[in-house]
Amino acid sequence: MSDLSEIKDRLRVFARERDWDQFHSPKNLSMAIACEAGELLELFQWLSESDSRGIMKDANEANRIRQEMADILIYLIRLADILDIELEDAVIQKIDLNAVKYPVATSKGTARKYTELDNA
Amino acid sequence: MSDLSEIKDRLRVFARERDWDQFHSPKNLSMAIACEAGELLELFQWLSESDSRGIMKDANEANRIRQEMADILIYLIRLADILDIELEDAVIQKIDLNAVKYPVATSKGTARKYTELDNA
Amino acid sequence: MSDLSEIKDRLRVFARERDWDQFHSPKNLSMAIACEAGELLELFQWLSESDSRGIMKDANEANRIRQEMADILIYLIRLADILDIELEDAVIQKIDLNAVKYPVATSKGTARKYTELDNA
Amino acid sequence: MSDLSEIKDRLRVFARERDWDQFHSPKNLSMAIACEAGELLELFQWLSESDSRGIMKDANEANRIRQEMADILIYLIRLADILDIELEDAVIQKIDLNAVKYPVATSKGTARKYTELDNA
Repeated sequence: MSDLSEIKDRLRVFARERDWDQFHSPKNLSMAIACEAGELLELFQWLSESDSRGIMKDANEANRIRQEMADILIYLIRLADILDIELEDAVIQKIDLNAVKYPVATSKGTARKYTELDNA
Repeated sequence: MSDLSEIKDRLRVFARERDWDQFHSPKNLSMAIACEAGELLELFQWLSESDSRGIMKDANEANRIRQEMADILIYLIRLADILDIELEDAVIQKIDLNAVKYPVATSKGTARKYTELDNA
Repeated sequence: MSDLSEIKDRLRVFARERDWDQFHSPKNLSMAIACEAGELLELFQWLSESDSRGIMKDANEANRIRQEMADILIYLIRLADILDIELEDAVIQKIDLNAVKYPVATSKGTARKYTELDNA
Repeated sequence: MSDLSEIKDRLRVFARERDWDQFHSPKNLSMAIACEAGELLELFQWLSESDSRGIMKDANEANRIRQEMADILIYLIRLADILDIELEDAVIQKIDLNAVKYPVATSKGTARKYTELDNA
């Protein structure tokens, strides 16, 4: 398994070779992430939740999902590189924040609470 | 630096403790990723590309961006776990595909080409 | 009921009074539409499809949904105005195209077909 | 020009003929709106703001933009129908709220203020 910093380096070279740094402003990369997230969403939009749990059984759909998820992560790593953000550190800190925001005692099995807190 | 599989395990425990697996259908997680991508987008929507390059100078904005990016990656890792996808492998393979799709010779410095190929 | 051209005029005055035309580039407005679509999505992300059908019973949620949908339409009308697009005409033409793309005979009750055709 | 209620009726018939009401839960329609917003975004992602202002000069791009905007409005009207929301009324009320939220005196020409208030 490669770690993210190795991928970051490959993406940096990839962009430089093609002279694409000029297009990779943080604004544009935030758009690219949202576009790819929209393409992932598209694969699930008409499926029931239950059918969505079995989506990987279809090899064609499985392949598309892997690719859309890869695209999101690619642009996320690229944006983190340009903004000098350590993605894994940011995630660990966010999980710690969420542990405080959603204590086990009050959050257990509650979609309703979840939604409300999420919007707080 | 933690690697993604360590984070995956933490998120799995986090969801299990709160009995949230029931809400984490692939369909719902694809929505969560798109929601968080929308929140990241919001931070850039009225900025010029040039101003977006300097956004980390504002500590408050920098903190929000780190958190929104973390949220996207959290849901991405969670979805990958549930669908049994190796995110880093998927990314490496996608970069290899992109290298074929966008040869240096024809892609260099061309936003127009980029966009068209992207939609192909 | 106001028609869209009346709303278009109000939004045009609103932007002009605040000197916001400078921010309302088509690129930025496409971002604003996606941001508002993300906020609408957020209200539904953890609900079952069945619960989503009853969401208007909660006065608070009903109000938020009305406002998010209004925001999307506001930016859509604004973008159409700036690009000189007649939204209603575009919709009528798209419905005619869809009638050809999804004939009743082959599209009836088929989510699978629907999804595949949608991505064609 | 057709008004929205005429379009609403056409879309209702369209869905009924194809037995698609079963797929048109509010949750799924909120996803469809976000997907189409993502496709619109895609057309602008690598363009400068300045180039985005001239996008209608390219007949092919102009056609795609009209179609993506039409798709967003189609699903918005469909969702409003199912939730029994009067879209135009919702828009008028939201504009009135915005007039209070963004007074001319303090909002004039200020992207920064705009963004902050927007997130308040």
